[in-house]
Order: sequence, then structure tokens, then C-alpha cells
Amino acid sequence: MKIYVFGVRGGDEEAPLKNWMAEHPEVEVGFTHDILTPDNANLAKGYDGVCSVQREPYAREALKMLHDYGISKLSVRNVGVDGFNFKDLNDFGFTLTNVPVYSPNAIAEHASFLVGRLLRRVPEFDDKFRAGNLKWSPTIGTEIAGKTVGVIGTGHIGSVFARIMQFGYGAKVIAYDIDPNPALENLGIYVDSLDELLAQADIISIHTPLAPQDYHMIDADAISKMKQGSYLINCARGGLVDTDALIAGLDSGKIAGAGLDVLDNENGIFQKDFGSFDAIPNEKFKNLASRDNVIITPHTAFYTKRAVHNMVYEAMDTQIKLLNGEITKNIVNTK
Amino acid sequence: MKIYVFGVRGGDEEAPLKNWMAEHPEVEVGFTHDILTPDNANLAKGYDGVCSVQREPYAREALKMLHDYGISKLSVRNVGVDGFNFKDLNDFGFTLTNVPVYSPNAIAEHASFLVGRLLRRVPEFDDKFRAGNLKWSPTIGTEIAGKTVGVIGTGHIGSVFARIMQFGYGAKVIAYDIDPNPALENLGIYVDSLDELLAQADIISIHTPLAPQDYHMIDADAISKMKQGSYLINCARGGLVDTDALIAGLDSGKIAGAGLDVLDNENGIFQKDFGSFDAIPNEKFKNLASRDNVIITPHTAFYTKRAVHNMVYEAMDTQIKLLNGEITKNIVNTK
Repeated sequence: MKIYVFGVRGGDEEAPLKNWMAEHPEVEVGFTHDILTPDNANLAKGYDGVCSVQREPYAREALKMLHDYGISKLSVRNVGVDGFNFKDLNDFGFTLTNVPVYSPNAIAEHASFLVGRLLRRVPEFDDKFRAGNLKWSPTIGTEIAGKTVGVIGTGHIGSVFARIMQFGYGAKVIAYDIDPNPALENLGIYVDSLDELLAQADIISIHTPLAPQDYHMIDADAISKMKQGSYLINCARGGLVDTDALIAGLDSGKIAGAGLDVLDNENGIFQKDFGSFDAIPNEKFKNLASRDNVIITPHTAFYTKRAVHNMVYEAMDTQIKLLNGEITKNIVNTK
Repeated sequence: MKIYVFGVRGGDEEAPLKNWMAEHPEVEVGFTHDILTPDNANLAKGYDGVCSVQREPYAREALKMLHDYGISKLSVRNVGVDGFNFKDLNDFGFTLTNVPVYSPNAIAEHASFLVGRLLRRVPEFDDKFRAGNLKWSPTIGTEIAGKTVGVIGTGHIGSVFARIMQFGYGAKVIAYDIDPNPALENLGIYVDSLDELLAQADIISIHTPLAPQDYHMIDADAISKMKQGSYLINCARGGLVDTDALIAGLDSGKIAGAGLDVLDNENGIFQKDFGSFDAIPNEKFKNLASRDNVIITPHTAFYTKRAVHNMVYEAMDTQIKLLNGEITKNIVNTK
């Protein structure tokens, strides 16, 4: 069995991939650091299947080349499959798999740390520190204990976040989900509507996918329903929050602070190195990033050793299942 | 009943003090922002008792003046009473109270956020961010879930920290205490010796007072017993850690990172504004602070609205008890 792996990041994916290879001497693995393009698709010639990950769109021509080499099984190491034109996949008869769950803890923990950094006013303390000011007063913080934390979306990630807040920090957790998680129902945390959650929560954290009807779920209207001085955390998808409405909410003080691992239209700026802060070509980003009550992390919530290990292992294990003709829950419906 | 209050910080203590005053119209309260000195002790003339807080030593002359005005009850709003020469207190017949517990959550939460900021390599991401680099790779983080967290000292604060780590983040918590906390014994977390804890923990957090025999509890010998690449958190007392040994441990890589809310000899620098980082007159501090795997917070772990509220309320309530001749658990043994 022979698998070719594209886009292996040297900094973090190569080590777990090599571990996987050492544990699977029966599988012949070739790999490149480069993402899959028509210029290098030929590297996969003679292999049975392909494993890939990339943020740019997948070129139809590259997929056609794989098809011409007799390859029809494609496993990506991430969740998102929006880089594919499904018509291309169907035209060439591909079976596509992803890794729908790799580490809910990675994202839930990161969201909780964003809460902590906001409540303890870390950006302000950092500024003071760099300026040689080691006084605490008047930069007083707030505790999570006793606060009401609203969790929007209670799947794998939201339920871990809820556990951290309630059982760890002693917050009062309330949750909203169109499809409540049976594992959480006995906690009595669900409220009946998003509006109810917005009205009660001191801290709101979003953990839903971006379904079309949820685009700009947090818009000016939603923000108007929040408590004065509430905190918003978004480690889910940028499109869930209307950035203009968020900026207005911060300006008015309705929103006391925001922790954002994602941004609407982040693709033009995240995962790029601009050489200087001023060169980042996105005024809304710079508006938010320059505020001392906003913390932006460039889509790093998922980025832990365990998560990357799981992404590599799960994608490779899934590719083997595909090549063996086995059933896998990770097949993406491309129809 | 008349109480005079010294050293009221305008930025954070004045508001809760005024709330307390509004709730106790029967008590006449005078206050000043200045700390108690021989120059202003006369402000307390005609009052029944005094409430105070300060980081500098209390002058014998000021205490003598209070004594001469007939005042013998003194309530401080913090834990530490090392600013007093007990002989002075005894010579003038003072009864001293402190606030031994004001918010264990404040400190335990802060310690947990230091863990998160270290494991997610926040200082490195901050540097990248300011330089316009929004790439995540290769700054990969680590999760708390699954790690072994060693808690040294399991009183009010340590036990909250242990709960956050175990029930919130899903860490494996182990603990060491010369006097195990009965409330935690059924968790089966206690190990039999400090050495055992040092050898097993990935993350070590100290939550003990500074008893004389615990001075430099974490020294070169203790560090040599730690796992390679462990993390050290100290939100307790600076004297518990030998700074030189810590620096050597960081240099060798034995210690992967440190989160420090306290430092040995911090009194010369914390709570002061030097105008620039370079002007901070402490080379060991600057050595530590310039490392991207060390986070120093200037004794801010306690500094939350709830903690300051509790410090003010508890000290004032205790002062009333003293003046009424009631028993209070907060009396400091000055003999």
C-alpha cells in the first residue's frame, strides 16, 4: 500500500507523520512540504492514495492528474473542505474524507484562556510592563467564579468549554443549541432561546459551525440584547460575528471585551507574514487589534501538539481504511 | 462608633469602602488615600479604631500617636503583617487583625491562566503579532488535558487550583502537603513526598505560605528532580523559589517555562513605576522578563474586584467586632 502526502508542514506535521510511518512499516509513504498543485501532482504517480491539507483552493487540473494516475481516494487532515469544488471531485470519481474531530480540548482550552486574558486585562498589564510600570492599581481584574457564562453550541468543543467553566472555574453556565447535547441535558444548563442567553450571560462564547442561516448570528440586533459590559469569545467561525456590529458594540461599551480566534474574511490576512503590523491590509482587523480590550489570535485555537498529531494520524488511518475498502465515518458527502 | 481608614487606594478600594459606608450609616468613617505615618496619624484623633493597609513598614511613632489618642484596635485589609514590629504593637497594647482569606479564586484562576499562557506560547505569538506575522506555524502549543499537574500546598488556594485543573481541564492532579486537606483526601491525589511530586509533574504550581523552613523550597536540588521540560508556576511567595536556580533551570531547558506572580526580593521593584523597562533596577528580574518562556505578573494574582471588595468589607466588619468586644478569628498572634 502506497500513500503520497502533500503539504506536510515541517514545523509541526513532519514529526507526527514520521512517527506514524515508523508505526506502519507495511505502508510506503512519500511526502512533500509543498501543497498539491498541477506542478507537483506527478509526485503521486504510482501511489494508491493521497493525503493532503491546504488553505488555498484545490486546482481541478491537479485532481485530474491524480485521477489519470488511477488515484480516487483523498484524505484531508483538517475539517474544512471548502477548498474543493465538489463538481471536480465528482467528475473524477473521488472519495473524500476529512478529520471532523481532532481535539475539542485544544479549542475549548484556548477559548477559556482568552476569557482569562480579557478578565485579567492582560493587554493593559503587558503595556504597563513593557513601559517599566509594575504597579497593579488601577488595572483591576474580574474572576470567572460566579459569572454567568453563555455557551452557544454544545457539540464536542462547546461541551468541553462548558465543563471547564462550570466544574473548573465555578461559573454559572447557560447554553443554547438548536439540538441540545443529551450528555449535558441533566445539567439543566439549556435556555430556550438565543435571546435568553444573550440577555443573561456576562461572558458569551460561540462554538457552532457556520451554517448559512447562522451567518452574522451576532449582529447589531443580537448585541443590543446583551447585558451591558459583556464579553464575547469567538473561536468558531469568523462569519458568525458581524465585525462592524462588534466594533460598534465595543465603541459604545455594550461589549466590554472580545477574544477572537477567527474573523470574517480572515483568509486574506491570517497565516501570512506581513513583515510589520502596519502592513496588514485590513483596517477592521487593525481597528480591533489596536484596542486593549480585544485579543486576536490568528486561528491558533486548534494548534496544539495533540491536535496536529490527531489530524495526521486520523487522516492517514482513514486513508488506509479507504484503500482497504472499509467503511469510515469521515467520508464527506460531496453530492 | 468611629473608624478611621488609612491608605485607601482611589483606583479600587474607595468604591467598595463607600459601599460599605452606605450600608453602615451607624458607623462614622473618615478616610485618606495616604498611608499611616507620623505626619498624618493625627487624622485618627477622636476615632475609636483604625483600618489600614500599606507595603512599607509601620512607623513606631505613628502607632504611639494612635495609642495616645486611646486607639488600641487595628485592622489591616491584607494578609501580610510583616510591616509591623510586633514589639511596637505589644508596647502600645494593640490588638491587630488581618484578612487571612479574601478570594482563593482570584489567585487560583490567575495561576491557571499563567499555565495557559505558557502552554500556548502567548509571549511568542504576541511578538509575532506585533511584527505583523499572523502565521501559527511553528509556534505550536500544548494542552492541559492529560498533563500531570503537581500542586504544592492544598489550602484555600491550592485546592481551588486543583479543582480547576482536574475537573475543568481534565489534567491528572497530584498534590503534596505536609498537612493534607481532608476535603481533598477522597480524590486520591496526594503523593507522599515533594520529591515524588517533582518527579511526576509536567506542571508544578506552588500554593504554600512562606514558612522559614520552606525558604527556597524550589532550589537547584529540587529542580534537578523535576521532569525534563516541566513548567513552574509561583503565585505564592517569592522566597519559595531560588531565582538563580530557576534561571539555571531555564538555561539548561530542564524547566520549559515559568509563570511568576512573585519574586524573591520583589519589594524593591513591584508596585513601582520606573518609566521604562530598562530602568527597572533588578538584573535577575530583567533576565527572566526578557525570556519568551517566562511570564511575570507583578503580584497581581490577588487583584480582582471581588478580592478587593472582600478585603475592605472583611477588615471593616472585623474592626466593628473588635470595637464591640466580640471574638474574631482574624486576630493576629503578635506575641
